[in-house]
Amino acid sequence: MKKLIIIRHGESLWNKKNIFTGWIDIDLSKKGLEEAINAGKSIKKKNISFDYAYTSVLKRSINTLWKILKITNLQWINVFKTWKLNERHYGSLQGLNKEETAKKYGEKQVLEWRRGFKTSPPKIDINHNTYPGNEIKYKNLKKKDIPLGESLLDTYNRVIPFWKKKIVPKIKKNNNIIIVAHGNSLRALIKHIEKISDENIININVPTGIPIVYKLNNNLNIEKKYFLY
Amino acid sequence: MKKLIIIRHGESLWNKKNIFTGWIDIDLSKKGLEEAINAGKSIKKKNISFDYAYTSVLKRSINTLWKILKITNLQWINVFKTWKLNERHYGSLQGLNKEETAKKYGEKQVLEWRRGFKTSPPKIDINHNTYPGNEIKYKNLKKKDIPLGESLLDTYNRVIPFWKKKIVPKIKKNNNIIIVAHGNSLRALIKHIEKISDENIININVPTGIPIVYKLNNNLNIEKKYFLY
Repeated sequence: MKKLIIIRHGESLWNKKNIFTGWIDIDLSKKGLEEAINAGKSIKKKNISFDYAYTSVLKRSINTLWKILKITNLQWINVFKTWKLNERHYGSLQGLNKEETAKKYGEKQVLEWRRGFKTSPPKIDINHNTYPGNEIKYKNLKKKDIPLGESLLDTYNRVIPFWKKKIVPKIKKNNNIIIVAHGNSLRALIKHIEKISDENIININVPTGIPIVYKLNNNLNIEKKYFLY
Repeated sequence: MKKLIIIRHGESLWNKKNIFTGWIDIDLSKKGLEEAINAGKSIKKKNISFDYAYTSVLKRSINTLWKILKITNLQWINVFKTWKLNERHYGSLQGLNKEETAKKYGEKQVLEWRRGFKTSPPKIDINHNTYPGNEIKYKNLKKKDIPLGESLLDTYNRVIPFWKKKIVPKIKKNNNIIIVAHGNSLRALIKHIEKISDENIININVPTGIPIVYKLNNNLNIEKKYFLY
């Protein structure tokens, strides 16, 4: 039986400031870097090794993974970085303070935007200064794939095909996998692997920097799940 | 026309101590880390971007590349790590001081071991404590591929097939490439791309931490070569 470890990046500078981040490429805070280091130490202590690593193309995740690989002496493993594991694109909420947004639109609306499954945030248009199509890292994406604002379902619909196509075959070949990603790309993944309903996913929140270990059997059913502190 | 940048890792702790390193996984010295940072700054200043990065599975190269990608804000590009770009395996010379070895075997012999094309160092056997087959990172290598001590020709014979199979197609598709590797894996590559004879390769030494930029035409002939300071 092989292990899958998923971990949300450490606290970012905008987590700290309570700002909707989405695809904005904000780095880790000092605390976030410490969380990454502690995650690495917990993994090392348990002697868990990985064969492949997956992360997004956003530096808060990439830097978290790097710290973990450095501490576990696994810098040499291949790391696959993909926009498909990026945070949910938060549309025109990106850059806004969550509390102020709640004051303006109401707590209920913001909770729905943040945790609902099918609710989309207000979208940006392609002239918006945060349109991802202007960034060199997304130059190979088809225009139709560049999000303007995603529901969790939209995020799910890019995360899960990637999971099935790229990661599942590696697990089936008995490889240990680590995925470092984001609050919502991981909620999508957790929904899928834990078979959580559309209604109940609203209750799932992923803490920053805490490794979640799954032991999966050959049918990818969960034999065991635990948090590493 | 696309760019190929090759760069030898910054000074390692054993470069500093003048010890044969080979496949021993020695980290950068403080000076080496600074060299890596300076290389990143030079590349950034010239506004050179990359589409793909290649390095060995040894941390002195991986860490040099990481610093460069961090400074150039290119952490999100995919990095391929392969033992085929590792330093030459120095056989039983690994761990020995170069000067003491010269006293024992003579300057000429040591120069021949270090710079000659077909000369192999004394080999280790599979019971030697530095036998790579005992390391987890080489667990997928066939036993016949695990070196016991390589001539530069042996190194050439793993570097160049990798270059032709994995990197050349990417260059032909107009991608900018960065390769961070080692004194001898890069000498092998330079010999190939600059068409240097077996005799003349003895004169080629690659400085640590200095990016070498090639502009290559579609036939992979060199249009321009320069060092970035």
